[in-house]
Amino acid sequence: MDTPTGLTGRMLIGAQDAEGREAALKGLDPATGAELEPAYGGADATHLERACGLAAAAFDTYRETSPEARAKFLETIADNILAIGDTLIVRAMQESGLPRPRLEGERGRTMGQLKLFAEVVREGSWMDLRVDPAMPERKPMPRSDLRLRNIPVGPVAIFGASNFPLAFSVAGGDTASALAAGCPVVVKAHPAHPGTSELVGRAIQAAVKSCGLPEGVFSMLYGAGNWLGGALVSDPRIKAVGFTGSRQGGVALMKIANARPEPIPVYAEMSSINPVLVLPHALASRGEAIAKAFIGSLTLGAGQFCTNPGLLLGAAGKDLDAFEGKVAENLPAAGASTMLTPGIASAYRGGVDRLAKHAQVKTVARGQPAGGPNAGQAAFFSTDAKTFIADHVLQDEVFGSSSVLVRCPDVNTMRDILEKLEGQLTVTLQMDPEDLEYAKKLLPVLERKAGRVLVNGFPTGVEVAHAMVHGGPYPATSDGRTTSVGSLAIYRFLRPVCYQDFPAGLLPESLREGGAAGAPIRRNGKLEG
Amino acid sequence: MDTPTGLTGRMLIGAQDAEGREAALKGLDPATGAELEPAYGGADATHLERACGLAAAAFDTYRETSPEARAKFLETIADNILAIGDTLIVRAMQESGLPRPRLEGERGRTMGQLKLFAEVVREGSWMDLRVDPAMPERKPMPRSDLRLRNIPVGPVAIFGASNFPLAFSVAGGDTASALAAGCPVVVKAHPAHPGTSELVGRAIQAAVKSCGLPEGVFSMLYGAGNWLGGALVSDPRIKAVGFTGSRQGGVALMKIANARPEPIPVYAEMSSINPVLVLPHALASRGEAIAKAFIGSLTLGAGQFCTNPGLLLGAAGKDLDAFEGKVAENLPAAGASTMLTPGIASAYRGGVDRLAKHAQVKTVARGQPAGGPNAGQAAFFSTDAKTFIADHVLQDEVFGSSSVLVRCPDVNTMRDILEKLEGQLTVTLQMDPEDLEYAKKLLPVLERKAGRVLVNGFPTGVEVAHAMVHGGPYPATSDGRTTSVGSLAIYRFLRPVCYQDFPAGLLPESLREGGAAGAPIRRNGKLEG
Repeated sequence: MDTPTGLTGRMLIGAQDAEGREAALKGLDPATGAELEPAYGGADATHLERACGLAAAAFDTYRETSPEARAKFLETIADNILAIGDTLIVRAMQESGLPRPRLEGERGRTMGQLKLFAEVVREGSWMDLRVDPAMPERKPMPRSDLRLRNIPVGPVAIFGASNFPLAFSVAGGDTASALAAGCPVVVKAHPAHPGTSELVGRAIQAAVKSCGLPEGVFSMLYGAGNWLGGALVSDPRIKAVGFTGSRQGGVALMKIANARPEPIPVYAEMSSINPVLVLPHALASRGEAIAKAFIGSLTLGAGQFCTNPGLLLGAAGKDLDAFEGKVAENLPAAGASTMLTPGIASAYRGGVDRLAKHAQVKTVARGQPAGGPNAGQAAFFSTDAKTFIADHVLQDEVFGSSSVLVRCPDVNTMRDILEKLEGQLTVTLQMDPEDLEYAKKLLPVLERKAGRVLVNGFPTGVEVAHAMVHGGPYPATSDGRTTSVGSLAIYRFLRPVCYQDFPAGLLPESLREGGAAGAPIRRNGKLEG
Repeated sequence: MDTPTGLTGRMLIGAQDAEGREAALKGLDPATGAELEPAYGGADATHLERACGLAAAAFDTYRETSPEARAKFLETIADNILAIGDTLIVRAMQESGLPRPRLEGERGRTMGQLKLFAEVVREGSWMDLRVDPAMPERKPMPRSDLRLRNIPVGPVAIFGASNFPLAFSVAGGDTASALAAGCPVVVKAHPAHPGTSELVGRAIQAAVKSCGLPEGVFSMLYGAGNWLGGALVSDPRIKAVGFTGSRQGGVALMKIANARPEPIPVYAEMSSINPVLVLPHALASRGEAIAKAFIGSLTLGAGQFCTNPGLLLGAAGKDLDAFEGKVAENLPAAGASTMLTPGIASAYRGGVDRLAKHAQVKTVARGQPAGGPNAGQAAFFSTDAKTFIADHVLQDEVFGSSSVLVRCPDVNTMRDILEKLEGQLTVTLQMDPEDLEYAKKLLPVLERKAGRVLVNGFPTGVEVAHAMVHGGPYPATSDGRTTSVGSLAIYRFLRPVCYQDFPAGLLPESLREGGAAGAPIRRNGKLEG
């Protein structure tokens, strides 16, 4: 295959290209198994040193750019991504096996995130401006003039995710929120979509240049093994980490970050089975509709979402039998989609096999058999509550279109199972108005277990919004106090600084009287819009 | 000595007293070395189990109390502390060696913190209410109704600090902010002031009862060794940790927290030498006044503050000679104060000896010789920049009235030294208007290194306010994204939850239309006061 126009196989370090000298990687078309040109040589210590050095050098300048300048930069990145045109979509299709409409939608989402953060930066709440004016006459001691603003934490290492080659990758939510906060970014491109990464990386590199920002604001490195990621997280100039991927990968990064002389926060979005609780009245009145909607959510995008519904809970009885029957009837029609990589497809098959072979787990239905080399055949299992509680392996995420129905002896067991679950990104209730009283009893558990609680929907499809939480207690994420989707994500990369008795000439502009440009200020604790 | 009225030597577990069966501890009057009755038996696994079990059981009820109810609870604790009367002050004086005016002031500060958090809870910003209403007509996909609020993380383990037996201890800032957030608290009382802890603990216990709250909202355990602290942080029901103390202690807790099956955040305020930079014009124009004010800050409270100025930086020359001479002239008059514990006094002497014996460090002056068994004699040293940079030991905190002046060859070396320093709670500039241009060059480094930057003051004396940051990059704290003093501290114990498409009857009250009781709401990203 010819090398697609514009792809060089090089890394981007500040304003420069760099040829990797370590083991090279290539994209691979999961639908055919064919390798995709060009090869991307891996970064060595020299490349890492340059990228981190440039990021550190850019930090003090970049973080003091005006909100308007930073917003324009984010918007320019969005425009530049669109300007790549169909080349981006075609390459992303080849590298990910994802269909065109999904990737066109994902491109829109990626641009939307950048533009949302542009708005957020302009609005200014993220600075958390606070002023407690001096009280020179206060007895017994005068009070100093105290002013506070958030500043960015420093250069951030971001790991591209496999399952969203655009929206959670080089210019994805982590990058958008870190750049919005004022942090330079060093991306480790995901090895499964190196060409897509190069195209998007160049869009950011061009925006850095045209916006007149210091080149170290953005670099992107490639690496085939584990060395680069570990070295990046260990680098003393890196002050935070953004990651979306496996639990194993996230936990490894947490360990490295905690072992540094200066530990740093890792925001890893890792593992969730997203329980769906079908409450009795809803099950009785519309079990069939729920079954069909569930199949839609389960098989969407070959189930390759962090929010895929991997666990269903219902009270055993004829309504649940009917529900199970309806899934069994409809799932076999669900087509097998190509999965993102041979590794993911193989891990999916392994996970499904483990469930299928489990003595106390029944295979209720499978989707259409897999066609291509890396296609995933949907799978739906059922088991009883006792088995589920006793065997922790049944709680493990199987990334792909696999889900387990747990037949609970009664509704209270649903609550007991929830209490025993690890942290989740989402928990969903399917309920009718008659289920309200029981739902109220469940709610405290749902809140403790998840970052997002849904009613009568399905967890796939994460809206990029101000009120979104794509987070949750460990191991859903490494840090349940935050989100990786939505405008709240900017706070991951900020820390407060207090300025005591500063002369006006030394104060940051936003903290001078009249300098906040419309951003909300808290004065003596009272918020002024 | 007779057992003071009201002290039982027992732990408080929920509404009950409990007799500790493990190794007992007693308070000790550091001024005389005399042991203080009664003995406090240490907690065992049964006590820990009960305290954590009650805390977990109380959580869902306590966290849904109204802001008004929670504010009243905090105010009741403050009132109850005052109602203990002079018994509290006398016991705290005995156990800490701190003088009456300081402890009366600290009591006021403790009550002030509780009342500040009562205000904060009522005001409601801490909930971070957000509403992104449904857009059923949106193309290509409708938007769900999304609502967000912060909920508390769960039961919190809090370690009393040695150096503030009231304000950073049983009912100190960590407890006040955790209770304000809606978290039950399990306190490990500091072994140096068990009687003070019992008195304050009973004030909280009584407030829990009179406010009709579940008893598990507060428990307090004693333990002489390291077992209790480690077991408390390891308990799966504990979801966050507050600690003020040594770097060694804080790092140990971080390791335990990170090794849990579910890692949890540790907010440890640990170690800082609080550099003071005396800029050239200020040094020339008012070196003498700065020297005297510096001595006041250095020796305040026997130097037993996290914010004690342990490092001075100035450009070598006749002005710095004169400054050093002025400290040498005045420090010998500074009285030796009793330190908090024999351990702290001994560690202080060890740290001072290490500096005094250092071949490249000059002992400039000492305060008055120590009188009592645990008094600390102030110490002031000087060295050159090369020595300071070369020997990392000189950066170590010596807890007490000890400080090192580093004679820099020029002003740029001051900046170089700052860049090489670890994270700090504070950095201070002594500057005249003519120093402004150089101060501007320094500011980015100051912000990166510290949580609070002061001009023409001294870092001791941390105002409890909305714009205060008592935090800073590691190792000043374990988590530089937060503060342990001031209203911002409440955010340490909160996490966001998103409610998607909830029927009104299931929504938390604060997220129902009109249910926010005046708390600010962000609607479609726009803040409504």
